[in-house]
Amino acid sequence: MNCILLPETSFQHDTAHIYDLAQIAHVNKVLSAKVGDSLKIGQLDGKLGSAIIEDIAPDRIQLGDIQLTINPPPKLNLTVVLALPRPKVLRRLIMDMTALGVNDIILINSYRTQKSYWQSPMLGRLDEFVLEGLQQGVDTIAPRISLQKRFKPFVEDELASLITNRAIVAHPYSALSFSQYVQQLGSNEPPHRSVGSLLPSMVFIGAEGGWIDYEIDLLATQGCAAVNIGPRILRTEAAVNVILGQWLL
Amino acid sequence: MNCILLPETSFQHDTAHIYDLAQIAHVNKVLSAKVGDSLKIGQLDGKLGSAIIEDIAPDRIQLGDIQLTINPPPKLNLTVVLALPRPKVLRRLIMDMTALGVNDIILINSYRTQKSYWQSPMLGRLDEFVLEGLQQGVDTIAPRISLQKRFKPFVEDELASLITNRAIVAHPYSALSFSQYVQQLGSNEPPHRSVGSLLPSMVFIGAEGGWIDYEIDLLATQGCAAVNIGPRILRTEAAVNVILGQWLL
Repeated sequence: MNCILLPETSFQHDTAHIYDLAQIAHVNKVLSAKVGDSLKIGQLDGKLGSAIIEDIAPDRIQLGDIQLTINPPPKLNLTVVLALPRPKVLRRLIMDMTALGVNDIILINSYRTQKSYWQSPMLGRLDEFVLEGLQQGVDTIAPRISLQKRFKPFVEDELASLITNRAIVAHPYSALSFSQYVQQLGSNEPPHRSVGSLLPSMVFIGAEGGWIDYEIDLLATQGCAAVNIGPRILRTEAAVNVILGQWLL
Repeated sequence: MNCILLPETSFQHDTAHIYDLAQIAHVNKVLSAKVGDSLKIGQLDGKLGSAIIEDIAPDRIQLGDIQLTINPPPKLNLTVVLALPRPKVLRRLIMDMTALGVNDIILINSYRTQKSYWQSPMLGRLDEFVLEGLQQGVDTIAPRISLQKRFKPFVEDELASLITNRAIVAHPYSALSFSQYVQQLGSNEPPHRSVGSLLPSMVFIGAEGGWIDYEIDLLATQGCAAVNIGPRILRTEAAVNVILGQWLL
Protein backbone atom coordinates (compact mmCIF):
# COMPACT_ATOMS: atom_id res chain seq x y z
CA MET A 1 0.00 0.00 0.00
CA ASN A 2 1.97 2.96 -1.29
CA CYS A 3 -0.95 5.35 -0.89
CA ILE A 4 -4.32 5.20 0.83
CA LEU A 5 -7.24 5.69 -1.53
CA LEU A 6 -10.51 7.01 -0.20
CA PRO A 7 -13.86 7.36 -1.91
CA GLU A 8 -15.21 10.85 -2.59
CA THR A 9 -17.76 10.38 0.23
CA SER A 10 -14.93 10.19 2.78
CA PHE A 11 -14.02 13.83 2.15
CA GLN A 12 -15.84 16.76 3.77
CA HIS A 13 -14.36 20.25 3.40
CA ASP A 14 -10.78 20.02 4.60
CA THR A 15 -11.11 16.70 6.45
CA ALA A 16 -11.44 13.08 5.50
CA HIS A 17 -11.99 9.82 7.35
CA ILE A 18 -10.55 6.33 6.90
CA TYR A 19 -13.09 3.65 7.84
CA ASP A 20 -11.63 0.67 5.97
CA LEU A 21 -10.13 -1.71 8.53
CA ALA A 22 -7.32 -2.88 6.22
CA GLN A 23 -6.29 0.75 5.69
CA ILE A 24 -6.50 1.49 9.42
CA ALA A 25 -4.35 -1.57 10.17
CA HIS A 26 -1.83 -0.43 7.54
CA VAL A 27 -1.55 3.05 9.09
CA ASN A 28 -1.09 1.60 12.58
CA LYS A 29 0.98 -1.51 11.98
CA VAL A 30 2.96 -1.04 8.78
CA LEU A 31 3.47 2.72 8.85
CA SER A 32 3.36 3.00 12.67
CA ALA A 33 1.96 6.47 12.02
CA LYS A 34 0.86 8.83 14.78
CA VAL A 35 -1.27 11.94 15.14
CA GLY A 36 0.52 14.76 13.32
CA ASP A 37 2.19 12.47 10.75
CA SER A 38 1.65 12.96 7.03
CA LEU A 39 0.09 10.21 4.89
CA LYS A 40 0.13 9.71 1.11
CA ILE A 41 -3.48 9.61 0.08
CA GLY A 42 -5.63 9.82 -3.01
CA GLN A 43 -9.26 10.22 -3.94
CA LEU A 44 -10.71 7.36 -5.96
CA ASP A 45 -11.29 8.67 -9.50
CA GLY A 46 -9.58 11.89 -8.42
CA LYS A 47 -6.15 13.24 -7.55
CA LEU A 48 -3.24 12.14 -5.39
CA GLY A 49 -1.66 14.03 -2.51
CA SER A 50 -1.22 14.02 1.24
CA ALA A 51 -3.02 14.58 4.52
CA ILE A 52 -2.15 14.94 8.20
CA ILE A 53 -3.45 12.50 10.79
CA GLU A 54 -5.66 14.39 13.28
CA ASP A 55 -7.10 11.53 15.30
CA ILE A 56 -6.75 7.75 15.49
CA ALA A 57 -9.62 5.62 16.83
CA PRO A 58 -9.88 1.82 16.48
CA ASP A 59 -12.55 2.07 13.78
CA ARG A 60 -11.75 5.45 12.23
CA ILE A 61 -8.82 7.73 11.44
CA GLN A 62 -9.47 11.42 10.94
CA LEU A 63 -7.33 13.34 8.45
CA GLY A 64 -6.89 17.09 8.01
CA ASP A 65 -4.91 19.49 5.82
CA ILE A 66 -5.97 17.56 2.72
CA GLN A 67 -3.77 18.36 -0.30
CA LEU A 68 -4.93 16.68 -3.50
CA THR A 69 -3.04 18.28 -6.37
CA ILE A 70 -1.23 15.49 -8.24
CA ASN A 71 -2.76 13.88 -11.30
CA PRO A 72 -2.69 10.08 -11.37
CA PRO A 73 -0.14 8.59 -13.78
CA PRO A 74 -1.30 8.00 -17.38
CA LYS A 75 -2.93 4.68 -18.14
CA LEU A 76 -1.44 2.29 -20.68
CA ASN A 77 -3.36 2.32 -23.96
CA LEU A 78 -3.94 -1.36 -23.58
CA THR A 79 -6.70 -3.90 -23.24
CA VAL A 80 -5.64 -7.22 -21.73
CA VAL A 81 -7.86 -10.17 -22.57
CA LEU A 82 -6.96 -12.81 -20.01
CA ALA A 83 -8.18 -16.40 -19.98
CA LEU A 84 -9.85 -16.69 -16.57
CA PRO A 85 -7.14 -18.15 -14.34
CA ARG A 86 -7.31 -20.29 -11.21
CA PRO A 87 -9.05 -18.30 -8.46
CA LYS A 88 -5.92 -18.57 -6.35
CA VAL A 89 -3.91 -16.43 -8.77
CA LEU A 90 -6.75 -14.12 -9.85
CA ARG A 91 -6.14 -11.68 -7.00
CA ARG A 92 -2.47 -11.10 -7.80
CA LEU A 93 -3.15 -10.90 -11.53
CA ILE A 94 -5.85 -8.24 -11.11
CA MET A 95 -3.61 -6.36 -8.65
CA ASP A 96 -0.63 -6.44 -10.99
CA MET A 97 -2.55 -5.43 -14.12
CA THR A 98 -4.12 -2.58 -12.15
CA ALA A 99 -0.79 -1.45 -10.69
CA LEU A 100 0.76 -1.54 -14.17
CA GLY A 101 -1.96 0.81 -15.45
CA VAL A 102 -3.88 -1.44 -17.83
CA ASN A 103 -6.92 0.46 -19.11
CA ASP A 104 -9.28 -2.42 -19.83
CA ILE A 105 -9.28 -5.99 -18.58
CA ILE A 106 -11.47 -8.65 -20.15
CA LEU A 107 -11.62 -12.01 -18.37
CA ILE A 108 -12.60 -14.58 -20.96
CA ASN A 109 -13.43 -18.24 -21.09
CA SER A 110 -11.00 -20.54 -22.88
CA TYR A 111 -10.87 -24.25 -23.60
CA ARG A 112 -8.41 -24.76 -20.77
CA THR A 113 -10.33 -22.63 -18.25
CA GLN A 114 -12.09 -24.96 -15.82
CA LYS A 115 -15.83 -24.29 -15.68
CA SER A 116 -15.69 -24.14 -11.87
CA TYR A 117 -13.52 -21.01 -12.03
CA TRP A 118 -16.59 -19.03 -13.14
CA GLN A 119 -18.34 -19.98 -9.88
CA SER A 120 -15.48 -18.78 -7.69
CA PRO A 121 -16.37 -16.24 -4.98
CA MET A 122 -13.12 -14.47 -5.96
CA LEU A 123 -14.98 -13.04 -8.97
CA GLY A 124 -17.16 -11.13 -6.51
CA ARG A 125 -14.09 -9.50 -4.99
CA LEU A 126 -12.59 -7.85 -8.08
CA ASP A 127 -13.19 -4.32 -6.74
CA GLU A 128 -11.15 -5.21 -3.66
CA PHE A 129 -8.25 -6.51 -5.78
CA VAL A 130 -8.42 -3.41 -7.97
CA LEU A 131 -8.22 -1.18 -4.88
CA GLU A 132 -5.14 -3.12 -3.74
CA GLY A 133 -3.58 -2.66 -7.18
CA LEU A 134 -4.31 1.09 -7.25
CA GLN A 135 -2.84 1.54 -3.76
CA GLN A 136 0.22 -0.47 -4.84
CA GLY A 137 0.75 1.37 -8.12
CA VAL A 138 -0.22 4.82 -6.72
CA ASP A 139 -3.10 5.45 -9.10
CA THR A 140 -6.71 6.49 -8.53
CA ILE A 141 -8.50 5.32 -11.69
CA ALA A 142 -9.71 1.73 -11.76
CA PRO A 143 -9.41 -0.27 -14.98
CA ARG A 144 -12.65 -1.34 -16.62
CA ILE A 145 -13.15 -5.07 -16.07
CA SER A 146 -15.61 -7.18 -17.99
CA LEU A 147 -16.34 -10.90 -18.02
CA GLN A 148 -16.87 -12.85 -21.25
CA LYS A 149 -18.05 -16.37 -20.56
CA ARG A 150 -18.21 -17.36 -24.23
CA PHE A 151 -15.07 -17.23 -26.33
CA LYS A 152 -16.42 -17.77 -29.84
CA PRO A 153 -19.23 -15.17 -29.87
CA PHE A 154 -16.90 -12.63 -28.28
CA VAL A 155 -14.18 -13.15 -30.89
CA GLU A 156 -16.54 -13.36 -33.85
CA ASP A 157 -19.00 -10.63 -32.97
CA GLU A 158 -17.37 -8.15 -30.60
CA LEU A 159 -13.60 -8.28 -30.96
CA ALA A 160 -13.25 -6.37 -34.24
CA SER A 161 -14.96 -3.30 -32.80
CA LEU A 162 -12.65 -3.31 -29.76
CA ILE A 163 -9.30 -3.43 -31.61
CA THR A 164 -8.23 0.19 -32.04
CA ASN A 165 -4.96 -0.50 -33.83
CA ARG A 166 -3.75 -4.09 -33.62
CA ALA A 167 -3.99 -7.13 -31.38
CA ILE A 168 -1.67 -9.99 -30.47
CA VAL A 169 -2.07 -13.26 -28.63
CA ALA A 170 0.80 -14.64 -26.54
CA HIS A 171 1.41 -18.22 -27.67
CA PRO A 172 4.62 -20.14 -26.87
CA TYR A 173 4.25 -22.26 -30.01
CA SER A 174 4.09 -19.39 -32.49
CA ALA A 175 7.11 -19.17 -34.81
CA LEU A 176 6.99 -15.35 -34.65
CA SER A 177 8.58 -13.75 -31.61
CA PHE A 178 7.29 -10.61 -29.94
CA SER A 179 10.40 -8.65 -30.91
CA GLN A 180 10.26 -9.86 -34.54
CA TYR A 181 6.63 -8.76 -34.62
CA VAL A 182 7.47 -5.28 -33.32
CA GLN A 183 10.46 -5.00 -35.68
CA GLN A 184 8.26 -5.86 -38.67
CA LEU A 185 5.85 -3.11 -37.70
CA GLY A 186 8.77 -0.73 -37.25
CA SER A 187 10.19 -1.37 -40.71
CA ASN A 188 7.01 0.13 -42.21
CA GLU A 189 7.27 3.24 -40.08
CA PRO A 190 9.44 6.33 -40.41
CA PRO A 191 12.73 5.88 -38.55
CA HIS A 192 13.04 7.43 -35.08
CA ARG A 193 9.38 6.81 -34.43
CA SER A 194 9.32 5.33 -30.96
CA VAL A 195 8.51 1.67 -30.62
CA GLY A 196 5.91 2.54 -28.00
CA SER A 197 3.54 3.96 -30.59
CA LEU A 198 3.75 0.72 -32.56
CA LEU A 199 2.72 -1.57 -29.76
CA PRO A 200 -0.64 -3.28 -30.13
CA SER A 201 -3.52 -1.92 -28.07
CA MET A 202 -4.78 -5.38 -27.21
CA VAL A 203 -3.06 -8.52 -25.98
CA PHE A 204 -4.57 -11.94 -25.28
CA ILE A 205 -2.83 -13.93 -22.54
CA GLY A 206 -3.72 -17.54 -21.73
CA ALA A 207 -3.88 -19.15 -18.33
CA GLU A 208 -2.03 -22.35 -17.45
CA GLY A 209 -1.83 -24.54 -20.52
CA GLY A 210 -2.33 -21.59 -22.84
CA TRP A 211 -4.58 -21.53 -25.91
CA ILE A 212 -5.57 -24.41 -28.15
CA ASP A 213 -5.06 -24.25 -31.92
CA TYR A 214 -8.76 -23.62 -32.53
CA GLU A 215 -8.60 -20.48 -30.38
CA ILE A 216 -5.40 -19.23 -32.03
CA ASP A 217 -6.95 -19.82 -35.48
CA LEU A 218 -10.19 -18.05 -34.56
CA LEU A 219 -8.25 -15.06 -33.25
CA ALA A 220 -6.22 -15.02 -36.47
CA THR A 221 -9.43 -14.58 -38.50
CA GLN A 222 -9.83 -11.24 -36.68
CA GLY A 223 -6.27 -10.18 -37.49
CA CYS A 224 -4.84 -11.08 -34.10
CA ALA A 225 -1.20 -12.19 -34.53
CA ALA A 226 0.21 -15.01 -32.41
CA VAL A 227 3.63 -14.18 -30.95
CA ASN A 228 5.95 -16.06 -28.62
CA ILE A 229 7.96 -14.56 -25.78
CA GLY A 230 10.86 -17.00 -26.05
CA PRO A 231 11.42 -20.70 -25.48
CA ARG A 232 10.70 -20.54 -21.76
CA ILE A 233 7.22 -21.21 -20.41
CA LEU A 234 6.29 -18.83 -17.61
CA ARG A 235 3.68 -18.83 -14.87
CA THR A 236 0.68 -16.74 -15.90
CA GLU A 237 1.60 -14.04 -13.40
CA ALA A 238 5.18 -13.89 -14.63
CA ALA A 239 4.07 -13.87 -18.27
CA VAL A 240 1.62 -11.02 -17.67
CA ASN A 241 4.30 -8.86 -16.06
CA VAL A 242 6.95 -9.75 -18.67
CA ILE A 243 4.60 -8.92 -21.54
CA LEU A 244 3.06 -5.78 -20.04
CA GLY A 245 6.53 -4.52 -19.15
CA GLN A 246 6.98 -3.87 -22.87
CA TRP A 247 4.31 -1.17 -22.64
CA LEU A 248 5.78 0.25 -19.44
CA LEU A 249 9.43 0.55 -20.38
CA MET B 1 5.65 -28.39 -14.16
CA ASN B 2 6.19 -28.32 -17.92
CA CYS B 3 8.83 -31.03 -17.79
CA ILE B 4 10.05 -33.47 -15.16
CA LEU B 5 13.71 -33.07 -14.29
CA LEU B 6 15.63 -36.02 -12.92
CA PRO B 7 19.14 -36.16 -11.51
CA GLU B 8 21.77 -38.10 -13.45
CA THR B 9 21.62 -40.87 -10.85
CA SER B 10 18.01 -41.63 -11.83
CA PHE B 11 19.13 -42.83 -15.26
CA GLN B 12 20.48 -46.34 -15.93
CA HIS B 13 20.99 -47.43 -19.55
CA ASP B 14 17.66 -46.85 -21.31
CA THR B 15 15.52 -46.54 -18.18
CA ALA B 16 14.97 -43.95 -15.49
CA HIS B 17 13.00 -43.73 -12.27
CA ILE B 18 11.00 -40.94 -10.68
CA TYR B 19 11.16 -41.10 -6.88
CA ASP B 20 10.21 -37.52 -6.02
CA LEU B 21 6.70 -37.53 -4.54
CA ALA B 22 5.76 -34.13 -5.97
CA GLN B 23 6.74 -35.35 -9.45
CA ILE B 24 4.84 -38.63 -8.96
CA ALA B 25 1.75 -36.70 -7.84
CA HIS B 26 2.07 -34.43 -10.88
CA VAL B 27 2.21 -37.40 -13.28
CA ASN B 28 -0.81 -39.03 -11.64
CA LYS B 29 -3.03 -36.09 -10.75
CA VAL B 30 -2.24 -33.23 -13.11
CA LEU B 31 -1.24 -35.18 -16.22
CA SER B 32 -3.43 -38.22 -15.42
CA ALA B 33 -0.78 -40.16 -17.30
CA LYS B 34 -0.85 -43.96 -17.69
CA VAL B 35 1.57 -46.71 -18.62
CA GLY B 36 2.48 -46.26 -22.27
CA ASP B 37 2.09 -42.45 -22.22
CA SER B 38 4.96 -40.15 -23.16
CA LEU B 39 6.36 -37.62 -20.67
CA LYS B 40 8.47 -34.53 -21.24
CA ILE B 41 11.59 -35.05 -19.16
CA GLY B 42 15.07 -33.66 -18.74
CA GLN B 43 18.29 -34.54 -17.00
CA LEU B 44 19.48 -32.00 -14.47
CA ASP B 45 22.55 -30.30 -15.95
CA GLY B 46 21.89 -32.25 -19.14
CA LYS B 47 19.49 -32.36 -22.06
CA LEU B 48 15.73 -32.30 -22.52
CA GLY B 49 13.56 -34.86 -24.22
CA SER B 50 10.95 -37.51 -23.59
CA ALA B 51 10.36 -40.95 -22.09
CA ILE B 52 7.61 -43.54 -22.01
CA ILE B 53 5.98 -44.60 -18.73
CA GLU B 54 6.65 -48.31 -18.17
CA ASP B 55 5.32 -48.79 -14.66
CA ILE B 56 3.56 -46.70 -12.00
CA ALA B 57 3.92 -47.59 -8.31
CA PRO B 58 2.90 -45.34 -5.39
CA ASP B 59 6.52 -44.46 -4.59
CA ARG B 60 8.19 -44.89 -7.97
CA ILE B 61 7.51 -44.44 -11.68
CA GLN B 62 9.64 -46.37 -14.16
CA LEU B 63 10.41 -44.78 -17.52
CA GLY B 64 11.78 -46.36 -20.70
CA ASP B 65 12.67 -45.32 -24.25
CA ILE B 66 14.61 -42.33 -22.92
CA GLN B 67 15.26 -39.71 -25.61
CA LEU B 68 17.43 -36.82 -24.41
CA THR B 69 18.50 -34.87 -27.48
CA ILE B 70 17.36 -31.27 -26.96
CA ASN B 71 19.73 -28.67 -25.55
CA PRO B 72 18.30 -26.49 -22.78
CA PRO B 73 17.50 -22.90 -23.83
CA PRO B 74 20.32 -20.37 -23.57
CA LYS B 75 20.68 -18.54 -20.26
CA LEU B 76 20.33 -14.78 -20.01
CA ASN B 77 23.69 -13.07 -19.65
CA LEU B 78 22.50 -11.52 -16.45
CA THR B 79 23.25 -11.39 -12.76
CA VAL B 80 20.35 -10.28 -10.58
CA VAL B 81 21.31 -8.84 -7.20
CA LEU B 82 18.11 -8.96 -5.17
CA ALA B 83 17.60 -7.45 -1.72
CA LEU B 84 16.54 -10.46 0.35
CA PRO B 85 12.72 -10.30 0.29
CA ARG B 86 10.11 -11.50 2.75
CA PRO B 87 10.34 -15.30 3.05
CA LYS B 88 6.76 -15.56 1.79
CA VAL B 89 7.67 -14.20 -1.63
CA LEU B 90 11.16 -15.74 -1.85
CA ARG B 91 9.88 -19.00 -3.35
CA ARG B 92 8.07 -17.35 -6.25
CA LEU B 93 10.94 -14.93 -6.88
CA ILE B 94 13.53 -17.71 -7.10
CA MET B 95 11.15 -19.77 -9.28
CA ASP B 96 10.52 -16.87 -11.65
CA MET B 97 14.15 -15.80 -11.98
CA THR B 98 15.09 -19.43 -12.64
CA ALA B 99 12.29 -19.90 -15.19
CA LEU B 100 13.35 -16.69 -16.95
CA GLY B 101 16.88 -18.04 -17.32
CA VAL B 102 18.87 -15.73 -15.03
CA ASN B 103 22.46 -16.97 -14.87
CA ASP B 104 23.46 -15.71 -11.43
CA ILE B 105 21.36 -14.67 -8.47
CA ILE B 106 22.86 -12.84 -5.51
CA LEU B 107 20.62 -12.36 -2.47
CA ILE B 108 21.94 -9.38 -0.59
CA ASN B 109 21.23 -7.56 2.62
CA SER B 110 19.80 -4.06 2.40
CA TYR B 111 18.78 -1.42 4.90
CA ARG B 112 15.13 -2.34 4.45
CA THR B 113 15.70 -6.10 4.69
CA GLN B 114 14.54 -7.26 8.09
CA LYS B 115 17.27 -9.15 9.95
CA SER B 116 14.86 -12.01 10.68
CA TYR B 117 14.64 -12.82 6.95
CA TRP B 118 18.17 -14.24 7.10
CA GLN B 119 17.00 -16.77 9.69
CA SER B 120 14.13 -18.02 7.55
CA PRO B 121 13.99 -21.77 6.87
CA MET B 122 13.02 -20.82 3.30
CA LEU B 123 16.70 -20.06 2.67
CA GLY B 124 17.40 -23.77 3.19
CA ARG B 125 14.94 -24.65 0.44
CA LEU B 126 16.44 -22.70 -2.45
CA ASP B 127 17.32 -25.87 -4.40
CA GLU B 128 13.70 -26.92 -4.25
CA PHE B 129 12.51 -23.54 -5.60
CA VAL B 130 15.14 -23.69 -8.34
CA LEU B 131 13.91 -27.15 -9.37
CA GLU B 132 10.36 -25.79 -9.56
CA GLY B 133 11.58 -22.91 -11.71
CA LEU B 134 13.53 -25.18 -14.06
CA GLN B 135 10.52 -27.48 -14.46
CA GLN B 136 8.33 -24.44 -15.13
CA GLY B 137 10.67 -22.82 -17.64
CA VAL B 138 11.77 -26.12 -19.26
CA ASP B 139 15.46 -25.76 -18.53
CA THR B 140 17.99 -28.10 -16.92
CA ILE B 141 20.75 -25.77 -15.71
CA ALA B 142 20.29 -24.18 -12.30
CA PRO B 143 21.33 -20.56 -11.79
CA ARG B 144 24.19 -19.96 -9.37
CA ILE B 145 22.83 -18.49 -6.15
CA SER B 146 24.92 -16.80 -3.51
CA LEU B 147 24.07 -14.98 -0.31
CA GLN B 148 25.69 -11.70 0.68
CA LYS B 149 24.79 -10.71 4.20
CA ARG B 150 26.82 -7.52 4.15
CA PHE B 151 26.00 -4.85 1.61
CA LYS B 152 28.91 -2.43 2.01
CA PRO B 153 31.83 -4.90 1.80
CA PHE B 154 30.18 -6.61 -1.16
CA VAL B 155 29.73 -3.38 -3.09
CA GLU B 156 33.12 -1.92 -2.19
CA ASP B 157 35.28 -5.02 -2.49
CA GLU B 158 33.60 -7.53 -4.77
CA LEU B 159 31.19 -5.79 -7.10
CA ALA B 160 33.69 -4.28 -9.56
CA SER B 161 35.11 -7.70 -10.42
CA LEU B 162 31.62 -9.08 -11.12
CA ILE B 163 30.43 -6.38 -13.55
CA THR B 164 31.31 -7.67 -17.02
CA ASN B 165 29.89 -4.74 -18.98
CA ARG B 166 27.58 -2.45 -16.98
CA ALA B 167 25.23 -2.54 -14.01
CA ILE B 168 22.02 -0.77 -13.09
CA VAL B 169 19.92 -0.47 -9.97
CA ALA B 170 16.13 -0.20 -10.21
CA HIS B 171 15.06 2.86 -8.21
CA PRO B 172 11.65 4.50 -8.56
CA TYR B 173 13.06 7.88 -7.52
CA SER B 174 15.79 8.10 -10.15
CA ALA B 175 15.23 10.81 -12.77
CA LEU B 176 16.63 8.54 -15.50
CA SER B 177 14.24 5.97 -16.95
CA PHE B 178 15.26 2.51 -18.08
CA SER B 179 14.46 3.31 -21.70
CA GLN B 180 16.35 6.64 -21.60
CA TYR B 181 19.32 4.74 -20.19
CA VAL B 182 19.22 2.15 -22.99
CA GLN B 183 18.74 4.88 -25.61
CA GLN B 184 21.77 6.75 -24.32
CA LEU B 185 23.87 3.62 -24.67
CA GLY B 186 22.44 3.04 -28.14
CA SER B 187 23.38 6.51 -29.39
CA ASN B 188 27.07 5.62 -28.92
CA GLU B 189 26.72 2.41 -30.92
CA PRO B 190 26.50 1.76 -34.64
CA PRO B 191 22.89 1.88 -35.86
CA HIS B 192 21.10 -1.46 -36.34
CA ARG B 193 23.00 -2.99 -33.51
CA SER B 194 20.37 -4.78 -31.49
CA VAL B 195 19.38 -3.33 -28.16
CA GLY B 196 19.89 -6.76 -26.56
CA SER B 197 23.66 -6.48 -26.78
CA LEU B 198 23.52 -3.13 -24.97
CA LEU B 199 21.67 -4.34 -21.94
CA PRO B 200 23.59 -4.34 -18.67
CA SER B 201 24.79 -7.70 -17.40
CA MET B 202 23.85 -6.90 -13.82
CA VAL B 203 20.74 -5.44 -12.25
CA PHE B 204 20.08 -4.63 -8.59
CA ILE B 205 16.43 -4.92 -7.51
CA GLY B 206 15.18 -3.86 -4.08
CA ALA B 207 12.59 -5.59 -1.96
CA GLU B 208 9.57 -3.78 -0.50
CA GLY B 209 10.54 -0.22 0.27
CA GLY B 210 13.42 -0.29 -2.21
CA TRP B 211 16.88 1.11 -1.58
CA ILE B 212 17.90 4.01 0.63
CA ASP B 213 19.95 6.93 -0.72
CA TYR B 214 23.11 5.66 0.95
CA GLU B 215 22.83 2.38 -0.97
CA ILE B 216 22.13 4.11 -4.27
CA ASP B 217 25.10 6.43 -3.71
CA LEU B 218 27.43 3.57 -2.81
CA LEU B 219 26.38 1.65 -5.93
CA ALA B 220 27.02 4.79 -8.01
CA THR B 221 30.63 4.87 -6.83
CA GLN B 222 31.04 1.52 -8.62
CA GLY B 223 29.47 2.84 -11.83
CA CYS B 224 26.06 1.38 -11.21
CA ALA B 225 23.38 3.65 -12.74
CA ALA B 226 20.04 4.16 -10.99
CA VAL B 227 17.08 3.88 -13.38
CA ASN B 228 13.34 4.04 -12.86
CA ILE B 229 10.75 1.86 -14.55
CA GLY B 230 8.00 4.46 -14.60
CA PRO B 231 5.89 6.31 -12.04
CA ARG B 232 4.13 3.20 -10.79
CA ILE B 233 5.45 1.25 -7.82
CA LEU B 234 5.24 -2.50 -8.35
CA ARG B 235 5.33 -5.51 -6.04
CA THR B 236 8.84 -7.00 -5.99
CA GLU B 237 7.65 -10.02 -7.97
CA ALA B 238 5.99 -7.87 -10.60
CA ALA B 239 9.03 -5.56 -10.81
CA VAL B 240 11.41 -8.51 -11.27
CA ASN B 241 9.35 -9.89 -14.15
CA VAL B 242 8.82 -6.48 -15.77
CA ILE B 243 12.53 -5.67 -15.63
CA LEU B 244 13.85 -9.10 -16.65
CA GLY B 245 11.36 -9.19 -19.53
CA GLN B 246 13.60 -6.60 -21.20
CA TRP B 247 16.31 -9.26 -21.51
CA LEU B 248 13.84 -11.89 -22.69
CA LEU B 249 12.01 -10.01 -25.43
